[in-house]
Amino acid sequence: MCEISQGSYAPENAGETLEIVDWLLTNPWIVACDGAMTTFPQGALAIRGDTLVAIGPAAEITARFRGIREMDLRGHLVLPGLINTHTHAAMSCFRGLADDLPLSEWLHHVIFPAEAAHVNADLVYWGTLLAIAEMLQNGITTFCDGYFFEEYAARAALDAGIRGVLGQGILDYPCPDQPHPERARERAAAFLDAFPRDTDRLRPSLFCHAPYTCGPETLQWVKELCRERGILFQTHLSETAAEVAELSHKYGERPVHFLDRLEILDANTLCAHGVWLDAGEIELLAQRQVGLSHTAESNMKLGAGVAPIPELLAARVKVGLGTDGCASNNNLDLFAEMDMVAKLHKVFRQDPQVCSAREVLAMATLGGARALAWDSEIGSLEAGKKADLIAIDLNQPHLTPCYEPVSHLVYAASGSDVRLVWVAGQLVVANAQVQTIDVPRTIREVQRLADKIRR
Amino acid sequence: MCEISQGSYAPENAGETLEIVDWLLTNPWIVACDGAMTTFPQGALAIRGDTLVAIGPAAEITARFRGIREMDLRGHLVLPGLINTHTHAAMSCFRGLADDLPLSEWLHHVIFPAEAAHVNADLVYWGTLLAIAEMLQNGITTFCDGYFFEEYAARAALDAGIRGVLGQGILDYPCPDQPHPERARERAAAFLDAFPRDTDRLRPSLFCHAPYTCGPETLQWVKELCRERGILFQTHLSETAAEVAELSHKYGERPVHFLDRLEILDANTLCAHGVWLDAGEIELLAQRQVGLSHTAESNMKLGAGVAPIPELLAARVKVGLGTDGCASNNNLDLFAEMDMVAKLHKVFRQDPQVCSAREVLAMATLGGARALAWDSEIGSLEAGKKADLIAIDLNQPHLTPCYEPVSHLVYAASGSDVRLVWVAGQLVVANAQVQTIDVPRTIREVQRLADKIRR
Repeated sequence: MCEISQGSYAPENAGETLEIVDWLLTNPWIVACDGAMTTFPQGALAIRGDTLVAIGPAAEITARFRGIREMDLRGHLVLPGLINTHTHAAMSCFRGLADDLPLSEWLHHVIFPAEAAHVNADLVYWGTLLAIAEMLQNGITTFCDGYFFEEYAARAALDAGIRGVLGQGILDYPCPDQPHPERARERAAAFLDAFPRDTDRLRPSLFCHAPYTCGPETLQWVKELCRERGILFQTHLSETAAEVAELSHKYGERPVHFLDRLEILDANTLCAHGVWLDAGEIELLAQRQVGLSHTAESNMKLGAGVAPIPELLAARVKVGLGTDGCASNNNLDLFAEMDMVAKLHKVFRQDPQVCSAREVLAMATLGGARALAWDSEIGSLEAGKKADLIAIDLNQPHLTPCYEPVSHLVYAASGSDVRLVWVAGQLVVANAQVQTIDVPRTIREVQRLADKIRR
Repeated sequence: MCEISQGSYAPENAGETLEIVDWLLTNPWIVACDGAMTTFPQGALAIRGDTLVAIGPAAEITARFRGIREMDLRGHLVLPGLINTHTHAAMSCFRGLADDLPLSEWLHHVIFPAEAAHVNADLVYWGTLLAIAEMLQNGITTFCDGYFFEEYAARAALDAGIRGVLGQGILDYPCPDQPHPERARERAAAFLDAFPRDTDRLRPSLFCHAPYTCGPETLQWVKELCRERGILFQTHLSETAAEVAELSHKYGERPVHFLDRLEILDANTLCAHGVWLDAGEIELLAQRQVGLSHTAESNMKLGAGVAPIPELLAARVKVGLGTDGCASNNNLDLFAEMDMVAKLHKVFRQDPQVCSAREVLAMATLGGARALAWDSEIGSLEAGKKADLIAIDLNQPHLTPCYEPVSHLVYAASGSDVRLVWVAGQLVVANAQVQTIDVPRTIREVQRLADKIRR
């Protein structure tokens, strides 16, 4: 357990030429996850307000700064908080409700009916809060969400102190929060107008469920509204071969070309899954600077297929990792996801050099930030970026010895190894315990909801 | 944290017709992992000495037994300890030494040279002890090992209180513990003669590295010696396509047929990997009742391929799960392995019904016991079997809610959720801390060895 010590700042030192910061973190092994994947074997970080003001070798940083709070993180790995680019957080309430079923049966016979019967503001608030507790414990500092009653997801994120992109779900079908699809525009506008403005940790978004549940007109007005407001447009894309065949038949072109013709694709569009993409589609996603959320565990569990990640990375598509919702994974652990991604693509290509630990860690951090068009502020530990960072305690059997920290993070660590988490300079997890959420109450509230769902 | 209470046994109750047991565990949700995958939503277990004497609904068991020690496990899942059917425990010292390399480069340029330079009794003892600490924390109560200086692995297992099969490694090449292959028989005999006889928790074994490193003569005398002593014969089998092609060319038949012709295959033979098997080989493995250790994470990380598990299960081959050594995984967590196995085969077949949670949990427990020819005593929670069991605390965000415990164990839980572990009736992990190993010292000793390896 790391102790916070009162910093060595004192009035009598005021004559020193040292800058005072809110946090001075000394001596961890830092993996900055910047473009060069810089590491500092014995580093230090200085945080002022919500910003990382300096990072570097401990000797250099401690010579420049004193902290109001200081922490000696010897024996820890520090890295940027992980970025979960695709989830439906409130679906934590449906975790494990049904497994090992064909996708369409799972979706149409279990998930959609459960959502129709049970999804309301209460479920979205508590389910999202539970998911946030899990994500923070697992070192996820930013999540990109899409669901119904999304203002309540935003409220949970606001209460919990996590960073997030909150996407209000839109379909051409009756939804739990809008039974009349023809009034979806009002629903979207109401969500955006009411979105909290008093924090830069949260960004609103609109989420067109998929090209097979939203027609061209819907896709277009939603994207248009996103453009007006300068926000992220989200959609599911080409998760199954059947869906691609159906859409290609219906519109006479493959889904990426269809979306491009509708002018949906740009740097503020994020597509989840992207399992079934051909070379031309990959090229187009790269040209349009579209973000792609790779959801390996969900795609595996539902038997959907294996996304062409080596080709997407080679084409320089902005690829991040996503857990998807708890009903199809069934947890929100990007450490497990990283391990899965690195191993899945190796065995799928029968090439152990594919998806190296470094590439995978980059997808879970800076790649995710790029996919969310938020990389100017998050995704790596660089001076001037937001202070979203996590610390892992290496002093455990399964993390001993440590020859190479990047490999360790991908192949040996798990979410439960995270001890400390800062979001925007605020310590939200200490000693592996979430500080900002009443976890026992949240568990009780979700169990109450689950008792109803079980019946 | 679960409290051990002094049981309600007292001399004044001696007139009652209640049996006194060493442990009475009440109220957990039990997943027995017997053939029928029986569950008791509110169960209880009675342990006397090293044996589970009763299991059933709490009302029934508490009406029959009083415990010298009692524990209320409300809110916990209890299941048999997991069985790791294939590892090289001491290789924890090489964890993450090299990753993302082609198998032959990894093996011949990194692992073999590191072993030649560094493997000795000291490394095997401390490396194995570290691995056991990790395995016990992750809920593994039995491991099947193969390495050099294996008497020191046995010593570590004896000290730590884990159950194990300890296989002395044999090759037709110079080994760290026997530079003269022609004297391997003496090495094997010395290992077997010195094996601890004062515990039934440990069983000796001999491990012929592989048909491509051991010729027919070696395979035959080792199996003969195993038959004489009534012990398990182990070998790696058909891990890579290249190895199968090479052996098929050399011997004129595929590896399983080759081994069968040498009379290697019977119920006391365990083969690890089995990635490249054709239908005839699968049928032969079933007929001969050979055990197979499925090492999915290792096979994935090394890009070796995907074992035909659905076909092996359909043919009723005795399939267990194995982590393989830490150098190719890079941890010893069968919960992560279960999740990976369930998802890998689903996506590989594009069928979410393949490798159900129930089938995967069965492989990690009773299937593993069968593969080790030890299922008369371990692998399931049934009265009369050894008291090897683990408890998971469900009261956590990522395990909330719980609709179906088997699905939860495979898709949502991780090794770090294990709170309590009993091996042969002894509480070896309490409050997630190993009670039988000096973990800080073990970590220091392995770090000392790693410092040498790093240079």
